[in-house]
Amino acid sequence: MSPARDGGPAVVALGGGHGLAATLSALRRVTHHLTGIVTVADNGGSSGRLRTEFGILPPGDLRMALAALCGDDDWGRAWAEILQHRFGGDGPLAGHPVGNLLLAALWDMEGDQVSGLDLVAELLGARGRVLPMANVPLDIEADVEFGSPEHVELVRGQVEVATTSGRILGVRLDPANPPACPQAVAALDSAEWVTIGPGSWFTSVMPTLLVPQLRQALLRTPAKRALVLNLVGQPGETEHLSPAEHLEVLAAHAPDLHLDVVVADAHTTVDVPSLQHAARALGAELVMADVRSSTRPDQHDPQALAEVFATTFAPGSPTQA
Amino acid sequence: MSPARDGGPAVVALGGGHGLAATLSALRRVTHHLTGIVTVADNGGSSGRLRTEFGILPPGDLRMALAALCGDDDWGRAWAEILQHRFGGDGPLAGHPVGNLLLAALWDMEGDQVSGLDLVAELLGARGRVLPMANVPLDIEADVEFGSPEHVELVRGQVEVATTSGRILGVRLDPANPPACPQAVAALDSAEWVTIGPGSWFTSVMPTLLVPQLRQALLRTPAKRALVLNLVGQPGETEHLSPAEHLEVLAAHAPDLHLDVVVADAHTTVDVPSLQHAARALGAELVMADVRSSTRPDQHDPQALAEVFATTFAPGSPTQA
Repeated sequence: MSPARDGGPAVVALGGGHGLAATLSALRRVTHHLTGIVTVADNGGSSGRLRTEFGILPPGDLRMALAALCGDDDWGRAWAEILQHRFGGDGPLAGHPVGNLLLAALWDMEGDQVSGLDLVAELLGARGRVLPMANVPLDIEADVEFGSPEHVELVRGQVEVATTSGRILGVRLDPANPPACPQAVAALDSAEWVTIGPGSWFTSVMPTLLVPQLRQALLRTPAKRALVLNLVGQPGETEHLSPAEHLEVLAAHAPDLHLDVVVADAHTTVDVPSLQHAARALGAELVMADVRSSTRPDQHDPQALAEVFATTFAPGSPTQA
Repeated sequence: MSPARDGGPAVVALGGGHGLAATLSALRRVTHHLTGIVTVADNGGSSGRLRTEFGILPPGDLRMALAALCGDDDWGRAWAEILQHRFGGDGPLAGHPVGNLLLAALWDMEGDQVSGLDLVAELLGARGRVLPMANVPLDIEADVEFGSPEHVELVRGQVEVATTSGRILGVRLDPANPPACPQAVAALDSAEWVTIGPGSWFTSVMPTLLVPQLRQALLRTPAKRALVLNLVGQPGETEHLSPAEHLEVLAAHAPDLHLDVVVADAHTTVDVPSLQHAARALGAELVMADVRSSTRPDQHDPQALAEVFATTFAPGSPTQA
């Protein structure tokens, strides 16, 4: 790792949704050189409607990441709140967050997705940059087992996969080889640390490993790689997967990926030895810490996560040996 | 008039639509103490749809006034362009300008129309304040003569009145006694100059004279009053009215209103004596000047209008005697 610079190391965070927002909220306390790279496969809610109406990237996860990077001053907080504000009622605008509409408008005006994101970041006084993982909207396809290995069906769409009643065996992107966002590839190439997760494992986190140009950059980057596991008991598509099984899913989707650190919650992780074993299989040290929010136990606490990152990134930490 | 202060006199501009935007563009070059008071009776296009969907003030004319006050720096220009940008296509968002949606969202969040307008003004670095003339959305009703005096019908709605094929005899507001915006009343009470027009005479300009509390403030203000006439030949609801007849319409809608200055375009006004006569009947000096845009002859040129205002507002001008 290059020596610590003023303002912290260059960090890239991969993921989507609330998980990435939690990581970015933590990381902006630790470094000023921060880039979020966001899954763009959402097909539900406001994002799905805007995708259908304008053929644009689903803006929702990008907006949420931007709001997580908002400045700590009144201006930043006010504008983060505005971006996140959803129209009510049951008319044509109902359910659209303002930030989604702003991104849609800026993409139309600028003709360029990254310029639009950078403009909103400037408005917010964002403490970092938010980029899409690909330059085109994507769809997620999953092989899903219903009941027995003979009953495997193809399920298509992020919403459909995330809410399936079956067991997800694996996910793919459609198109399978989308153009990566070049600025995202460049950010990985010059990163010192990369974080992956937490988040919806199959529909937010795995997709960031499946864009070929981005995966190549993730494999060749000189950066160290930290994985943040979901909190145990987080409901959804991986409700019945243990933390160790989360790592197996990761290895199955990105076989050559080496990790340096795996962060797990100390209070909710039951079978530590098997998790340690799974982490070692990926080359990683397991870091157990109390990272669960006391007020919202289904979410990570940004300040606790920030302390873990600060310790992990510090030149004297075991992973820096 | 109070002595000229740093940053110019306190000016209030009444009107709506492109006419008010032109006046505000001119006035922001002349003073830093500027308030636009805007008609809120639009029932067409994006404003009409948002009014129907959320029961809010029609935001369009307010947005246009804000954009006209944008800062002259890159930030101000970029955000003015964003506010004015309309969604394309033919989906649920088509035709909505971003600024209309932003105002609708802020009014929902803030629960207060003036706070929302002030926040957008702050975002833009606006050179002045924009206020609605009333705190509730209004409708315009007109008595319209079709063919002969026996055929007078009631036409309801700003769009319907503005596009009627008949001759408009007069307009009213519904409700007839809406609550004025208190900040607008206060701005009139402490103004040094008030400008009225140009703009759609019956549907943008006259309505600002019909809110009772606002009209009382306009009658009692110590400010001097300048009326800016439309350019002759401006198409629309007053296509066949001469400039002098515009003044007669004004006098019919606001019988007690005294004016100090009437500004008319020198190149397009044909019958100057009758206009002078009509201006004198209202107590006003007629100022003839070349105020038409060379590139868009249906619009006023903001810089030319600014020079007229600067001369008119100057302590040494004839109206200051």
